[in-house]
Amino acid sequence: MTDLKAVLDSIHKELAPRIGEGKVADYIPELAKVDANQFGLSVVTVDGKAYNVGHADVPFSIQSISKVFMLTLALGKVGEGLWKRVGREPSGSAFNSIVQLEHEQGIPRNPFINAGAIAVTDVVMAGHAPREAIGELLRFVRYLADDESVTIDDRVARSETQTGYRNFALANFMRSYRNLDHPVDHVLGVYFHQCALSMTCEQLAKAGLFLAARGSNPMTGHSVVSPKRARRINALMLTCGHYDGSGDFAYHVGLPGKSGVGGGIFAVAPGIASIAVWSPGLNKVGNSQLGAVALEMLAARTGWSVFGD
Amino acid sequence: MTDLKAVLDSIHKELAPRIGEGKVADYIPELAKVDANQFGLSVVTVDGKAYNVGHADVPFSIQSISKVFMLTLALGKVGEGLWKRVGREPSGSAFNSIVQLEHEQGIPRNPFINAGAIAVTDVVMAGHAPREAIGELLRFVRYLADDESVTIDDRVARSETQTGYRNFALANFMRSYRNLDHPVDHVLGVYFHQCALSMTCEQLAKAGLFLAARGSNPMTGHSVVSPKRARRINALMLTCGHYDGSGDFAYHVGLPGKSGVGGGIFAVAPGIASIAVWSPGLNKVGNSQLGAVALEMLAARTGWSVFGD
Amino acid sequence: MTDLKAVLDSIHKELAPRIGEGKVADYIPELAKVDANQFGLSVVTVDGKAYNVGHADVPFSIQSISKVFMLTLALGKVGEGLWKRVGREPSGSAFNSIVQLEHEQGIPRNPFINAGAIAVTDVVMAGHAPREAIGELLRFVRYLADDESVTIDDRVARSETQTGYRNFALANFMRSYRNLDHPVDHVLGVYFHQCALSMTCEQLAKAGLFLAARGSNPMTGHSVVSPKRARRINALMLTCGHYDGSGDFAYHVGLPGKSGVGGGIFAVAPGIASIAVWSPGLNKVGNSQLGAVALEMLAARTGWSVFGD
Amino acid sequence: MTDLKAVLDSIHKELAPRIGEGKVADYIPELAKVDANQFGLSVVTVDGKAYNVGHADVPFSIQSISKVFMLTLALGKVGEGLWKRVGREPSGSAFNSIVQLEHEQGIPRNPFINAGAIAVTDVVMAGHAPREAIGELLRFVRYLADDESVTIDDRVARSETQTGYRNFALANFMRSYRNLDHPVDHVLGVYFHQCALSMTCEQLAKAGLFLAARGSNPMTGHSVVSPKRARRINALMLTCGHYDGSGDFAYHVGLPGKSGVGGGIFAVAPGIASIAVWSPGLNKVGNSQLGAVALEMLAARTGWSVFGD
Repeated sequence: MTDLKAVLDSIHKELAPRIGEGKVADYIPELAKVDANQFGLSVVTVDGKAYNVGHADVPFSIQSISKVFMLTLALGKVGEGLWKRVGREPSGSAFNSIVQLEHEQGIPRNPFINAGAIAVTDVVMAGHAPREAIGELLRFVRYLADDESVTIDDRVARSETQTGYRNFALANFMRSYRNLDHPVDHVLGVYFHQCALSMTCEQLAKAGLFLAARGSNPMTGHSVVSPKRARRINALMLTCGHYDGSGDFAYHVGLPGKSGVGGGIFAVAPGIASIAVWSPGLNKVGNSQLGAVALEMLAARTGWSVFGD
Repeated sequence: MTDLKAVLDSIHKELAPRIGEGKVADYIPELAKVDANQFGLSVVTVDGKAYNVGHADVPFSIQSISKVFMLTLALGKVGEGLWKRVGREPSGSAFNSIVQLEHEQGIPRNPFINAGAIAVTDVVMAGHAPREAIGELLRFVRYLADDESVTIDDRVARSETQTGYRNFALANFMRSYRNLDHPVDHVLGVYFHQCALSMTCEQLAKAGLFLAARGSNPMTGHSVVSPKRARRINALMLTCGHYDGSGDFAYHVGLPGKSGVGGGIFAVAPGIASIAVWSPGLNKVGNSQLGAVALEMLAARTGWSVFGD
Repeated sequence: MTDLKAVLDSIHKELAPRIGEGKVADYIPELAKVDANQFGLSVVTVDGKAYNVGHADVPFSIQSISKVFMLTLALGKVGEGLWKRVGREPSGSAFNSIVQLEHEQGIPRNPFINAGAIAVTDVVMAGHAPREAIGELLRFVRYLADDESVTIDDRVARSETQTGYRNFALANFMRSYRNLDHPVDHVLGVYFHQCALSMTCEQLAKAGLFLAARGSNPMTGHSVVSPKRARRINALMLTCGHYDGSGDFAYHVGLPGKSGVGGGIFAVAPGIASIAVWSPGLNKVGNSQLGAVALEMLAARTGWSVFGD
Repeated sequence: MTDLKAVLDSIHKELAPRIGEGKVADYIPELAKVDANQFGLSVVTVDGKAYNVGHADVPFSIQSISKVFMLTLALGKVGEGLWKRVGREPSGSAFNSIVQLEHEQGIPRNPFINAGAIAVTDVVMAGHAPREAIGELLRFVRYLADDESVTIDDRVARSETQTGYRNFALANFMRSYRNLDHPVDHVLGVYFHQCALSMTCEQLAKAGLFLAARGSNPMTGHSVVSPKRARRINALMLTCGHYDGSGDFAYHVGLPGKSGVGGGIFAVAPGIASIAVWSPGLNKVGNSQLGAVALEMLAARTGWSVFGD
């Protein structure tokens, strides 16, 4: 049996001299202010134990990691009917590319690229006003994490609203193909708020634990999704979770995961544990530089890769 | 403990009325002659037991499944240097698309689309004549399967040579970007022969068993690759093994796998078993229709999905 | 010397049985209400004579034909510097395609596709409020046509504002590449109003006469642009004036021209005459069906093709 | 009346200090050997007078300019039926791009990009062996130029055959879509020989004079095509004659034309004259640098632009 605490300590110690590497995202002004010299890692096992190192208790903007929670909500609402609105294939292009949308007539390739996540948001809204949809998501994430202190950072949401031209382009484009039911401003209002969810590594690992544990959170006993749906969400994270770097992540880490431009990465070792790592400096494909390294070390030292030990 | 024999029998029995479904590939004239009413399934576990149902002992043209063996050979020759010649990301397009090659200047997206496999073949040739390279591959696959009766069907190879215009286009295109070292005719000569490997389900499952067993074949004791490389090949199969249907396969089956237009699918349950299924009728994305269904049933009934049980 | 009146009469007579052919544009609700059974043709020669047949005195929505006037204004403001903001090459794609914009980083291919015209509008605005820019354009077109009765149809402008998602996508996309200086809403406000210019065939032919007459309107004596600039605008119309049907128009008609989805087509016979034709029914590439036929007949019977008589 | 001799002399004199500018094409080894310090210009008017300056009597490889003669031959054989095999629209991409071919299923955009010219060659062959087709073209060009000394440079043809991977890719790709009737090697054999036509500026201007003179060569009295077809070929040259630089050529020069990578440009002033210019150094879009400048000067000083004087 792996001594998890020792593994996390060794990773933390080895990476300590490198903390601050990478480049903090600057396209959202509010995110650019984050101190790069931070690193946190949290592992929560399916028997309910949490292991933390570094800044695992510092809240950060989870950004695109929120797409996992929104997908879960959307599947809960419309089930497999969701796949009429969005595909399930890797995109082979950048997170914010619009080319594929034109070639495939407004249907985004998967729920984890921006266009796909915007379509998923539209599904989650289901006729409700933005404020209500945001409230629903926040309640859902707090329920998943069993922690009422999870919040949304309004400044970050506002910052994205003011500069998110590319997302406005994607949303209007889909609307022109009638693949958005709600007004573009409303859908993006919700979308920017979900990206602005502020969570610690430990909260994030707990909130996603159901994906490692057959769809239920063993710490709270809450059943979130069926085992089959949990597997499927994991499959989507593995094939599509890192935009055009998904193949590389699978190759090096071997765990289903989802990254965010805030420097967080969430990952799942099915049947074993839920993992969240955070370090704001990004590598050149836009994922947390140390986060990706830490996960590769973790998978190698624990033998948790889904592709063999 | 799952009773594997019972699981295979139940799958065979349930699918029996559907055998013959799908459409046999007709773009290679020689393949079009295959009788659609065939179905075979073989599972070989890491403790060396083989379970077979149906036509598991009938040789078929493994076609693109051979790309897994060629990739293994190429990594053995040049190691991670291979990735200068070919990428590791899902392509988001058809198996024979040339668009991506132009946008990315002659570097194919991954080793499992046609262009990527042609580049891998060029690497394996390493200055040798086509006949020698074909011989090397055949010896390698016989060694992996521990079975000298594996052959290459020359008629199929010839049939593809005469009609494979698209592959000639891909190879010439890469050559124009200097991403082929050998003459196009030579590389495609080898490529068409590897696709024409003729194997039974059981031979195929045995030949690929090393990928389920940390890189070594437990039946022969042969060490083929390191555990790390086995994991990485599995990762590539999961993210890229079914062209633009890879996401769907991961979603429904949840196992690393590689399909061929001859109706075969090879899959790996890491640490557990190696699987080969064959049924010539293809679904509309070009994979064996019953083969995909059988694997989904197998994964569901055994809990072998890498994404959770 | 061609008897122009006789030519126009013969065209009108021959086309009379076909009036009503084609399909009125329906993607802008307000345009869909137009009666299809209308056809007008006006030719104004460089010596100032006007020849009209049919509904040449009925105002219609000139739509994309306005791009010619906006281009003229923009060149007047920033000269050849305009070409930093927009290209001069045919696009090889649909009028509202966004693919090229991503491949060429926010620089539209030419001023006559939607994205290019939106960039041109941004240049014309030059820091002014939408109302002022709209006023400037209206004054300019009235000046060109020497006719104060030219108006903008607010209902059409409003109708487009409410449904023009694709244009909002294009504008936001360009803004994300910093190729728009003004707020998207402002630029599109102006853009939709220019498209809603309502003119008769005769007004339109007069307004564009300067392009046939070395840059000056011989009827008013107004100098609009230099002879060189007139030639260049004509060149752009010939290569780019009909989106992805520009080659076909040059092949069949052989005159620089610009079509609009309202069923109008403006054309120039350099040194000879300015031409406007209108019939609301569109052919399958989105140009006026009878308008294109009428222009082909006119060019054939007059020998006005720029490619030889 | 313009003093043509004076105009040509002035152009020659002004450009003399710049002769040698640009970069000689090096992708065909045999072409790379050409001395850059050459410049020739020939104008032949429809009344049969020839005006030459510089190296107008030095043969050079006309390369893609031959596409105009092959198009003329193909239209003569199959008439408008040709347009089932190739389009008539500008491509919006590089001369050797394959992307469009995949998106439009093997139908090249126009006869002047490589893929389109290869399809045209296939049409011209009409079941004949390569040698016969090459002979037919050579006889046709000699007939057009009224000069039996026109030859094909076999070394250039051979040089291209050995390095033309991209053209082999295009041809195989079209063959996979059944848009080539003859074997790829045969079609490209003819194609490379037509590109290797060796002509002087004066020969070229004479050979193309029919396009300026309503389809007939006024010097020989030979009727080549109808006036309508001459106009249409001119239209195609104007919209598509310079690959993705066609818009720019129309903008600056304003004449139908076709460039070749050997440094030649052929142009037509309809009803007035036929023009050939040659200078081996290419600009960065692959056209003769001084050739384009000379044509711009010629059009400006003569008022021959089709877009107005």
